[in-house]
Amino acid sequence: MEPKDQIGLRRANLAHVLEVLRVHGPHSRAGIARLTGLNKATSSSLVAELTDRGLVRLGSPATGQFGRPGHLVELRPGTVCGIGLEVNVDYAAVAVLDVAGTLVRHRRVARDLVALGPDGAVDLLGELASAEIAALRADDAWVAGVSVAVPGLIDVSAGVVRLAPNLGWREVPLAARLAERIGLVPGVDNDANHSALAEHAAGVAAGTPDLLYLTGEVGVGGGVISGGSLLRGATGFTGEVGHMPLDPAGERCGCGRIGCWETSVGLAALLRGVAGDDDPVRDPALDLEQRLTLIAGRARAGDARTLAALHRIGSALGVGASILVNVLNPAVVVLGGYFAVLGRWLLGPAREELCARVLAPGPAGCELVLSDLGFTAAVRGGAHAALDAVLTDPTTAPSRSATAVRQAPEQHRSTS
Amino acid sequence: MEPKDQIGLRRANLAHVLEVLRVHGPHSRAGIARLTGLNKATSSSLVAELTDRGLVRLGSPATGQFGRPGHLVELRPGTVCGIGLEVNVDYAAVAVLDVAGTLVRHRRVARDLVALGPDGAVDLLGELASAEIAALRADDAWVAGVSVAVPGLIDVSAGVVRLAPNLGWREVPLAARLAERIGLVPGVDNDANHSALAEHAAGVAAGTPDLLYLTGEVGVGGGVISGGSLLRGATGFTGEVGHMPLDPAGERCGCGRIGCWETSVGLAALLRGVAGDDDPVRDPALDLEQRLTLIAGRARAGDARTLAALHRIGSALGVGASILVNVLNPAVVVLGGYFAVLGRWLLGPAREELCARVLAPGPAGCELVLSDLGFTAAVRGGAHAALDAVLTDPTTAPSRSATAVRQAPEQHRSTS
Repeated sequence: MEPKDQIGLRRANLAHVLEVLRVHGPHSRAGIARLTGLNKATSSSLVAELTDRGLVRLGSPATGQFGRPGHLVELRPGTVCGIGLEVNVDYAAVAVLDVAGTLVRHRRVARDLVALGPDGAVDLLGELASAEIAALRADDAWVAGVSVAVPGLIDVSAGVVRLAPNLGWREVPLAARLAERIGLVPGVDNDANHSALAEHAAGVAAGTPDLLYLTGEVGVGGGVISGGSLLRGATGFTGEVGHMPLDPAGERCGCGRIGCWETSVGLAALLRGVAGDDDPVRDPALDLEQRLTLIAGRARAGDARTLAALHRIGSALGVGASILVNVLNPAVVVLGGYFAVLGRWLLGPAREELCARVLAPGPAGCELVLSDLGFTAAVRGGAHAALDAVLTDPTTAPSRSATAVRQAPEQHRSTS
Repeated sequence: MEPKDQIGLRRANLAHVLEVLRVHGPHSRAGIARLTGLNKATSSSLVAELTDRGLVRLGSPATGQFGRPGHLVELRPGTVCGIGLEVNVDYAAVAVLDVAGTLVRHRRVARDLVALGPDGAVDLLGELASAEIAALRADDAWVAGVSVAVPGLIDVSAGVVRLAPNLGWREVPLAARLAERIGLVPGVDNDANHSALAEHAAGVAAGTPDLLYLTGEVGVGGGVISGGSLLRGATGFTGEVGHMPLDPAGERCGCGRIGCWETSVGLAALLRGVAGDDDPVRDPALDLEQRLTLIAGRARAGDARTLAALHRIGSALGVGASILVNVLNPAVVVLGGYFAVLGRWLLGPAREELCARVLAPGPAGCELVLSDLGFTAAVRGGAHAALDAVLTDPTTAPSRSATAVRQAPEQHRSTS
């Protein structure tokens, strides 16, 4: 994958400049030259091309410089954008992020997706995406791509949802179906994978090269960032952590197996644990966030049943997490979904089990932290994934003034 | 890490040519140009430099070529070599591999390493390595590096064994200690990691980008190859699979915890399972391979106790492997150590559990296979690891004729 010619080298250098601005913030052209190790002429030429492609802009004047005053180069907001979509059991959502990392728009619609089925889901996702694409084009922005998060096993290269148990989907060619509606082929990935990308790009542990994200929902999934990249495995099915068999004498799981981790830490286990059948917390008609607020209120008031259940779940969370820490050795485990909402009561017992069960002392330096992206992690991650192509190869973004860079006009048309 | 200048580009291209020869076998310079996408002049210049550095040579004449007849370029055996060392509970070993992948030498010495302690181990490893280094230098070969496999938690960047429970080691600065004896700083890594490298380079599943290796010894460890590279994690402690807590009502492990995977699939569980206290199979004075041969003989003869124990262990192997397949999604799980020796009886029940417990149908396309590297995997892997630096940057190998490549003579001296 290494560049082996001048064109590849140029692409890699353009990407390197963007990376430097992302990591180190606005810099003068001289500063960029210093940080990239490139000479000033090359650095200026790269900045000119990135400016022309709408990826960077000249911002405030640089201070403390010798010679003629220059301007700081910064990532340009609002011009090159990625769109993330999410389909889940009871909602669909869309988010737009620009290369500067700004959340341009976020929208979430409550809908019974299981009842809608794949056809209805494609309609709904298509509408959400098309509206954003139209709005961005009206603003003279360029859509770098679209990526959809689905809670299930995804064939990423084919864009097919192989199996999404909670949605009741099997073999849904989501990328192809959605491409007919929106005019471009979206990426499709697992929701935990997209959430991990969002955490890595902009969460509480952003930039940590080895990071594990755990979704705390009906199903418990894992997204693994390793060495700065998403761990995909042979067929893209990494991070299926919810069905680890942790107790041969445990409860029967929704999947039919016995003692899966989900049976002790999934949302259903939480609701069963904290409240009896007639309790409003168990009322499926009530919004999930309201129910979680009720539980948090009782825990804060010292309710014994609630606290005991949260302690039990926290311990079980630590037991399962210890396996993942022993196997994957992340620097940080980010807890998402309901784990983050009720984290205050889960973290203590979870950390205790982690320390007791991880083989390396410390425990291997791993920290358990709570996500602050709430339920937007997956949809933000989709937008990051969509932007990744342009960050890796900035020449995919069309030139905004055909004369500014030395390319044949035909090439501009084909990429715009 | 991408090359950003001409020197980096040259290095990457040199490495690319070696890679092409490794993967596709001997080729003419024209063939190399075609496979790398480089032009013929560049390709010939790269081959000239690699020849000068002792990495490739001209072999048999190329056939079926137009124009003047050329010779096939092939990896040069015996000239640039890596040395792998292994220290384990009851033996130490050394192996020498060249860039062509030939096992130049392998030697294993039985010794009670626990009794010897770290000082004695450093003496022994130092002797083994020094003898090979002297022999290689006498043959005008160049030692690319040395790497040591240790069954424990290794700080790879510092070359320190943090914890090796079965050896009774803690905080042993092995790289520094050994460097004093052999005159170069060796790499140090976990034995399962080195074994995984060997399997990836030259085992039954060689070249599989997503591969998991499991050591079947007293301790059960995992080495993970992901996307073609060793998965290291944040602090290098990935693959600690032996202490996954799989049964809260299980047996107490040597580590003090309850229900660790090792308690049902480690070597001790095998020996306890197949034979009573007075059985020669349980006699620690007998060589392990002899005891395994006894067990295999009984299984072949249909002994009920032996078969039942192997079936039970096979199932437990499948249960634990299913977690690793769900989390890591390898294409292949390679079973090493005693798992490979008794694999014939373990594979059936293990595959059954794997199919039942892996969420993705199929099970996620993962195959369970038996290693054919026997107990040499770790020491071969060390040699591969030692060669990796020169395969990644072939300019680290010294020029064998200072005039053949355009570099200042000072540079040659500093790398030789």
